[in-house]
Amino acid sequence: MKKHIMVAQSGGPTAAINASLAGVIRGALGSGIYDKIYGSIHGISGVLNENFMELSERARTEEHFLERLALSPAMFLGSCRVKMSDPLEEPEIYDQIFHTLEKMHIGAFFYIGGNDSMDTITKLSIAAKAFGSHILFAGVPKTIDNDLIHTDHTPGYGSAAKYIASSMLEIAHDTYIYDLPCVTIVEIMGRDAGWLTSAAALARNEYNKTPQLIYLPEVPFSRSRFVADVKNELKKSKNVVVAVSEGIRDEKGIYISAKEAVADKFGHMQLSGVGKVLENIIKRELHVKVRSIELNILQRCAAHITSAQDLKESEELGEMAVKLTENGKTGFMTSIHRISDTPYRYEIRQASLTEIANKERSVPREWINEAGNDVTEDMLRYIRPLIAGETATEWKDGLPVYLPVPHLNHAGE
Amino acid sequence: MKKHIMVAQSGGPTAAINASLAGVIRGALGSGIYDKIYGSIHGISGVLNENFMELSERARTEEHFLERLALSPAMFLGSCRVKMSDPLEEPEIYDQIFHTLEKMHIGAFFYIGGNDSMDTITKLSIAAKAFGSHILFAGVPKTIDNDLIHTDHTPGYGSAAKYIASSMLEIAHDTYIYDLPCVTIVEIMGRDAGWLTSAAALARNEYNKTPQLIYLPEVPFSRSRFVADVKNELKKSKNVVVAVSEGIRDEKGIYISAKEAVADKFGHMQLSGVGKVLENIIKRELHVKVRSIELNILQRCAAHITSAQDLKESEELGEMAVKLTENGKTGFMTSIHRISDTPYRYEIRQASLTEIANKERSVPREWINEAGNDVTEDMLRYIRPLIAGETATEWKDGLPVYLPVPHLNHAGE
Repeated sequence: MKKHIMVAQSGGPTAAINASLAGVIRGALGSGIYDKIYGSIHGISGVLNENFMELSERARTEEHFLERLALSPAMFLGSCRVKMSDPLEEPEIYDQIFHTLEKMHIGAFFYIGGNDSMDTITKLSIAAKAFGSHILFAGVPKTIDNDLIHTDHTPGYGSAAKYIASSMLEIAHDTYIYDLPCVTIVEIMGRDAGWLTSAAALARNEYNKTPQLIYLPEVPFSRSRFVADVKNELKKSKNVVVAVSEGIRDEKGIYISAKEAVADKFGHMQLSGVGKVLENIIKRELHVKVRSIELNILQRCAAHITSAQDLKESEELGEMAVKLTENGKTGFMTSIHRISDTPYRYEIRQASLTEIANKERSVPREWINEAGNDVTEDMLRYIRPLIAGETATEWKDGLPVYLPVPHLNHAGE
Repeated sequence: MKKHIMVAQSGGPTAAINASLAGVIRGALGSGIYDKIYGSIHGISGVLNENFMELSERARTEEHFLERLALSPAMFLGSCRVKMSDPLEEPEIYDQIFHTLEKMHIGAFFYIGGNDSMDTITKLSIAAKAFGSHILFAGVPKTIDNDLIHTDHTPGYGSAAKYIASSMLEIAHDTYIYDLPCVTIVEIMGRDAGWLTSAAALARNEYNKTPQLIYLPEVPFSRSRFVADVKNELKKSKNVVVAVSEGIRDEKGIYISAKEAVADKFGHMQLSGVGKVLENIIKRELHVKVRSIELNILQRCAAHITSAQDLKESEELGEMAVKLTENGKTGFMTSIHRISDTPYRYEIRQASLTEIANKERSVPREWINEAGNDVTEDMLRYIRPLIAGETATEWKDGLPVYLPVPHLNHAGE
């Protein structure tokens, strides 16, 4: 009898995470060894609560299901933020998971997520071996933050970068209209890594020099240097735009928006308001018109403006994960290996999970200029291929058409 | 000898104001009586500073110039926020304007803008008659706020409404992922009128009931009723989304975000932060997960997601303004007269400028539900046709291609 597979999603949404889900489904449908495909609702919690959805029937019969799934925002199977305890500390949890999956004849379990999800896959694969379970565990990366190690970049990053660069260009057009000195500060997601904020530089072109200043968490932020930077740019142009990561810190490592910082259970800092802090600094010090804009969660969920390249790779990573388990592989994450920038070429490979949960990939210092207020051409060469191509959003009555959120009957309403 | 025309833009940007400019240019090119087309840079200031740009040559020779202009965000000719004094108080300003325009053989002047721009056109047309000038003055409406009287709706509103409704749907997908009670507050533009915030309701569909609550400036806001509303919705759904206008006020007329309010020179209140205020109220009173999102200036400048219907009408309003001056009309604004909702039919007409500068059109009370926390089906029937249809954004290297901002050499850099 053929085994089934199970797939789940975890962590924060991206515009590409459903493309990886479509990839896993496509991979399993095309596989010779797997039969049914179960989705676990709300990540690993779905396994613990036995909350599942059968996906293969729908994928086989519903026209354009996989194409529409790939283009729909957020997470079709819902998410969770469960931190798995150590298998030695709470073996009963692992026993329960393996028991449930074995009862359902699951041969392989796929987790699409970021650092924390890869931590879960690491623990599950180690525990499976220790506890004598034959279930295979595979990770498929995703995070708009682009901070996973062992992969050139992460799915979801390219689409978020495209949204950020396009928005910065549209904001530039908006800021140019008045003949008055004006400073615009745009706050972009990124607690610890400046990858997203760096994408703002792609908005520059033959007529638009903004954003002139870019501040990333990788370089200690100095308020006085910032004021001097803005003052200097105002000498060159009436219109100064600043792109700043939410997570910039001062020389002592204290968040610029520190007053609002609280730690969640993974020890991550939840921040907001750095744009407002910088706005007030400029108002006070330079007495010019200044406003701040926070690019909000549309950075990760604006599915009407995704990178075709990003969605393609996201799907391939899901498909490859299934393929690798066909050969009995377990305890790995699929990853992207870049072969060249121009023309852009890459390979989907498997990467070790070692340290992936605990290490974050920062922007290399040499991709930031010496003054620490801009990125270099190397950075732009790295991002450019990742935002390439557009996807065909379906529209009806003036609104985008996405796949209805299926788990609502259970969880939401 | 044929006369020339001059055109200018004023006030805040919309995604459709360049479509009206394209319409004026197209109208003048097709006219039998006008020769050259001058753009005044930075609104009426360009006339006072003699800062012009010749547009007809480029429009006649550059391929796709008008199509690309219509699809480019913000304001091609730049803007200003000049409040014209009364002609009797400062006749020398009017003398200077008429002198400059007559010297350039301008037969008609077109101003694309909102309330304040129509005030300028009113004063100029009255002064022209009083001072014996034969120059014709015409207004072409625009404002995302949709608060001009004498027109069914305003150009720019449909595209902003489409952006808001689409963003609300994408935000809904994002908020549905966790299996936890969560309140999301989305702050939408609108100081005095709730037209923009009302568009959030269009995001509702067969699977998405959010936003469940909508608060407009037209109804006095009560903090205690708000808390009760949210509490009630949390009983029905884990996921509550609130759409709120930036300008909501309490029973005494005091802005909910009053601490940050300052008046500009037109007496408009500059607001921000109502989302944050409501977020804090819910955190304090209900102890649930809550976050606030401010839909920022992308509401008015995200040209990659505009309403085809809005851009079509915007262009027609510009074209019609030219046509009316061909018959010697002056001191008017072109306007949209709705004939029917379904199918949507309308006519472009001319409207009087009487009171247009001083009166704002609010959402009628009967289009808001009795409880004051939602809009009615009448409102949705009104907005739906205005967001219809998509425009074909041009993309290159992963980014939208817009017409370069031309006045930068003079003003910006």
